Amino acid sequence: MSDDALVIFTPSGKRGHFPLGTPVLSAARQLGVDLDSVCGGRGICSKCQISPGYGEFPKHGVTVAEDALTEWNAVEERYKSKRGMLDGRRLGCQARIMGDVVIDVPPESQVHKQVIRKSAAERVIAMDPATRLLYVEVAEPDMHEPTGDFERLAIALRDQWQVEDVAADLAILRRLQPTLRKGEWKVTVALHKGNHDSRPRILDLWPGFHDGAILGLAVDLGSTTIAAHLCDLRDGRVLASGGVMNPQIRFGEDLMSRVSYVMMNAGGDVEMTRVVREALDGLAQSIAAEAGADPASIYETVVVCNPVMHHLLLGIDPVELGQAPFALATSGSLSLDARDLDLKSVNPAARVYMLPCIAGHVGADAAAVALSEQPGQSEEMVLIVDVGTNAEILLGNKSRVLACSSPTGPAFEGAQISSGQRAAPGAIERVEIDPVTKEPRFRVIGSDLWSDDPGFAAATERLGITGICGSGIIEAVAEMRMAGLVDQGGLIGGPDQTGTARCIAEGRTHAYVLHDGSADGGPRILVTQGDIRAIQLAKSALYAGARLLMDEMGIDHVDRVTLAGAFGAHISPKHAMVLGMIPDAPLDKVTSAGNAAGTGARIALCNVGARDQIEATVHHIHKVETAIEPRFQEHFVNANAIPHAVDGFPSLAAIVTLPHLSFNTAGGREGRRRRG
Amino acid sequence: MSDDALVIFTPSGKRGHFPLGTPVLSAARQLGVDLDSVCGGRGICSKCQISPGYGEFPKHGVTVAEDALTEWNAVEERYKSKRGMLDGRRLGCQARIMGDVVIDVPPESQVHKQVIRKSAAERVIAMDPATRLLYVEVAEPDMHEPTGDFERLAIALRDQWQVEDVAADLAILRRLQPTLRKGEWKVTVALHKGNHDSRPRILDLWPGFHDGAILGLAVDLGSTTIAAHLCDLRDGRVLASGGVMNPQIRFGEDLMSRVSYVMMNAGGDVEMTRVVREALDGLAQSIAAEAGADPASIYETVVVCNPVMHHLLLGIDPVELGQAPFALATSGSLSLDARDLDLKSVNPAARVYMLPCIAGHVGADAAAVALSEQPGQSEEMVLIVDVGTNAEILLGNKSRVLACSSPTGPAFEGAQISSGQRAAPGAIERVEIDPVTKEPRFRVIGSDLWSDDPGFAAATERLGITGICGSGIIEAVAEMRMAGLVDQGGLIGGPDQTGTARCIAEGRTHAYVLHDGSADGGPRILVTQGDIRAIQLAKSALYAGARLLMDEMGIDHVDRVTLAGAFGAHISPKHAMVLGMIPDAPLDKVTSAGNAAGTGARIALCNVGARDQIEATVHHIHKVETAIEPRFQEHFVNANAIPHAVDGFPSLAAIVTLPHLSFNTAGGREGRRRRG
Repeated sequence: MSDDALVIFTPSGKRGHFPLGTPVLSAARQLGVDLDSVCGGRGICSKCQISPGYGEFPKHGVTVAEDALTEWNAVEERYKSKRGMLDGRRLGCQARIMGDVVIDVPPESQVHKQVIRKSAAERVIAMDPATRLLYVEVAEPDMHEPTGDFERLAIALRDQWQVEDVAADLAILRRLQPTLRKGEWKVTVALHKGNHDSRPRILDLWPGFHDGAILGLAVDLGSTTIAAHLCDLRDGRVLASGGVMNPQIRFGEDLMSRVSYVMMNAGGDVEMTRVVREALDGLAQSIAAEAGADPASIYETVVVCNPVMHHLLLGIDPVELGQAPFALATSGSLSLDARDLDLKSVNPAARVYMLPCIAGHVGADAAAVALSEQPGQSEEMVLIVDVGTNAEILLGNKSRVLACSSPTGPAFEGAQISSGQRAAPGAIERVEIDPVTKEPRFRVIGSDLWSDDPGFAAATERLGITGICGSGIIEAVAEMRMAGLVDQGGLIGGPDQTGTARCIAEGRTHAYVLHDGSADGGPRILVTQGDIRAIQLAKSALYAGARLLMDEMGIDHVDRVTLAGAFGAHISPKHAMVLGMIPDAPLDKVTSAGNAAGTGARIALCNVGARDQIEATVHHIHKVETAIEPRFQEHFVNANAIPHAVDGFPSLAAIVTLPHLSFNTAGGREGRRRRG
Repeated sequence: MSDDALVIFTPSGKRGHFPLGTPVLSAARQLGVDLDSVCGGRGICSKCQISPGYGEFPKHGVTVAEDALTEWNAVEERYKSKRGMLDGRRLGCQARIMGDVVIDVPPESQVHKQVIRKSAAERVIAMDPATRLLYVEVAEPDMHEPTGDFERLAIALRDQWQVEDVAADLAILRRLQPTLRKGEWKVTVALHKGNHDSRPRILDLWPGFHDGAILGLAVDLGSTTIAAHLCDLRDGRVLASGGVMNPQIRFGEDLMSRVSYVMMNAGGDVEMTRVVREALDGLAQSIAAEAGADPASIYETVVVCNPVMHHLLLGIDPVELGQAPFALATSGSLSLDARDLDLKSVNPAARVYMLPCIAGHVGADAAAVALSEQPGQSEEMVLIVDVGTNAEILLGNKSRVLACSSPTGPAFEGAQISSGQRAAPGAIERVEIDPVTKEPRFRVIGSDLWSDDPGFAAATERLGITGICGSGIIEAVAEMRMAGLVDQGGLIGGPDQTGTARCIAEGRTHAYVLHDGSADGGPRILVTQGDIRAIQLAKSALYAGARLLMDEMGIDHVDRVTLAGAFGAHISPKHAMVLGMIPDAPLDKVTSAGNAAGTGARIALCNVGARDQIEATVHHIHKVETAIEPRFQEHFVNANAIPHAVDGFPSLAAIVTLPHLSFNTAGGREGRRRRG
């Protein structure tokens, strides 16, 4: 028997020869195998559990004897009896190599655990959070070689964890001496990794070995809602999610009205900064409460948002964003202290990371969508639209990525619609109209029944039928178009033109009665001509933005469309295409990415490498400014028709035949022209 | 005539050939000549003034023609007519080289101006402050190449000033956009240099060219007093100096009683931290007011202090410093935000630098003394004693430097003395006793007259004669020893033993009547036996500390003694040696360095390179811990005699003959033994 042995780690396949007696953990470290440890190999933390394999491994060309590792020892026995451990597992720091062996590192023992996103487009996030726990043993003070306790802790972190040049705030220095003595010179620190512009920093510390929660908050700060996920930074699990309305709404529904508010009201920005910070702090508290966690366990917050929200959260007057050349005060990513943003409920040493902005109208939220959806990695030409009060649009593939934003306004969110309301119980969210009878059926949020199902009335009695939400109005208009109630120009036909008494006169135009609850004391829910016009404006802006990017890219069709945004998750691709919100594409290539910006925030929260990646990527995303592009107006006008005055929709035509109609009695134009 | 010309700069002697037409400033930069400029060569700041020389320069081997530089231009004319400029001067950015030329850079045009310390030991400080003003022209935003205003400012600083990777706080980002627009894309920034652990940072900014004050505060935070100098960081001038009592005195006169206060009173450290921070902030305000400056112009504060004050200022419980092994929470230098220390009156972005501590009993004040007095650069073996409530002692030369601290207590500052008082008007500060008549004469603070001068009574009528300050009691005791009123053991003789009625009985001991003001309603000022004992304890501690260092160094005499500390400036070397406060040395080799700790703080304030130097130096200073060194007690006991029971004082004996005396009627020991 030789003096060393072959060790093969799976699943990595890394292998090497080590002297007999080498602990498995040491071998893993030398080979760069991803094997976790908080206690640094002292048999305390149990993070380094491994599964040795015995017998023949023809694939690896080795035979593993029963005594390939040292025997099960007292440290392992104590851990297993106290905390439990799966049979066959060993502690990597205790088991020493005595012969050739194959060692499997189970997923939960990897530092860079992989987390599968539960969403339509599954995406793997490798855990590599900014903050992790490290257990260290610190040298005691020596009167003859005087150094500070902090300096000895720094040396211990350097020697035991290869952390160079660590820093700590005064608040940590203040607690250091009693903590070291209580822990008898053994402490666990929460260490925030350094990066190119900051030193590694101790955010918290505890006497002895500590294995408490290290939480992070991923925030998607929208104009209308603030949504957040509370994540465990050890394994990436989402412990709770929640949202609140953005309290800035009272200063203006959309971004430009908030910028106007600042221009008209001195100090308006200060007020808006205050309320959004308070809301964010409150959200951190309430989500932590929902998860049964202490908000002081939140050490890291990642925020994504559009440029106006970005500036208002930072306390920067957004007025420059309201006028050409739309200059951002700062476009780079930002690493801040949470207290700089008045986040009082999170840990006092907590950090905040804000993704970079792409341009004055294309913010950190679009960067987060790019991080989540990775258009720059796509073989196919993909169009990503993040539908909200403002639409962020990305187009690209491996060669090139373009971006713009388009001011769709809040119609898609149910605002500016006669019976519009936010997506809440009682809101109509799905609509179908029988093309023969012109009769509707619908579903409301809070019930799974369609309105013509038995029991619907009883099921919705308590909810009420209160209005139409964003996805409901899109389906309603698209269904009206398919059923021949609305013509290509967006005009609602009269009862004689459409053959249904549901099309009623409203002044000089018509409206469609989707639901009449007046007999039961409820509202009469109409789709009015004004509603159609509002949706036409919004969808034209969205389509024109996408079309501008296609012009810049030199293409006239896309391979794939991704609908992002919380609202995007509820849009039916078919109806979106009937409406002409998005360019034509095979329906099975139109998918929802859910809240892609929020996912991007989660990725940046769980993996600091992703931050470097998006910081590098944004410089390569070419920005198209819709506000000054002369062709935007032309695209906007052409997109006013339903689905479009000029562009063809061949993929849509293969499955849906839209009736040729013109209700304009003054003499309409020919309904459809094909191109391409 | 060739296409290039020889340029020689004086006083540096740097020379080089440059194409005709090269501005003098550019040539200076290429050669690394120290020529200042705030505006980057735009003819705005006038910092780059130079004096061209014309005619024969045999030393340099050139002849300078009258047209060696381009003609005086409109920019220079405008500057001279508006702001004035010495005849013969040119602006280095405007004058271009047209022939061989000799250019003198006057001292005030150098960035690293040299400042001569006005003190006994003249020392030159080369200006290299952490913060300086830089004027930059920033690219305007471009919608087609969107970047943030901050990112474009960073690029301008990189391209125009070679400042890489600049950072700015939110408060600066908040002001950036209006300032850039007001200055029409030209701004002046106050830039704090980065160092090994921090990025360069913008502390302040102004529209256009700005040449306002950049001030710094050098603070010597002592147990008893807080002294500070307000300096102009452009040229190192001290604009004002001032001091306040350390308000912590009410928690304990000396350091150990303050540590005890914390141990006995929960939260006592928090209270002491609060009051010292308030006092420091108030001092910054009052000194700025005295200089007629805005305290918000203070961008940098350097603090030196002993370890207990260091911890209390930082808000760290000093309890560990009160017991072996005297562990510091942190010993390294610290760079902090002024707001971390609640300094509210200085600029909101101001920084604080604290020098490193040497050990648990030898603090940043001792490090500052080492920086000011540079024992490690000395050829001679120098002993430096910083006399205060605690004495810091350094001993060394080029080969090796040792340090210790010794708990002298407050007797040297007039405390624990029967008629003792702080150095204030009315305090006796100088004493002489006639060896024949045994009659005293003295001077009080506030008058230049001796007490036997005509007009003394009138001159001191308003002041009063209120007590004895620290230097006064040292002179009094030494004079009493020389006049035969006090014996070698420190005993005051009775009237029969001394032959003067001024030696009166007080219980079982005697006291010397220095001044009897009771007839005029004033106090009777005595030097009591208790006073002598208090001085003996203090001087024994000081001497024993010095002696321990000499033991460690393996020497029994020193070449030179430097008395440092504000109080050290007032001690008469002869009297100090008669008392045996310091080891024997030639009297002309005993000098005062004034407030060396304060000078060290000023050096670190004006020159960031000096910070690196002292940070490196403290690691090489070997610390001797008096509290645990067995020989300390022996040295202490031997040093109780006046001047010493064992050690000889040959240099002193050459000029002063001390009477052999013993007033101990129980039988004294032999008065003097010689050694060495």
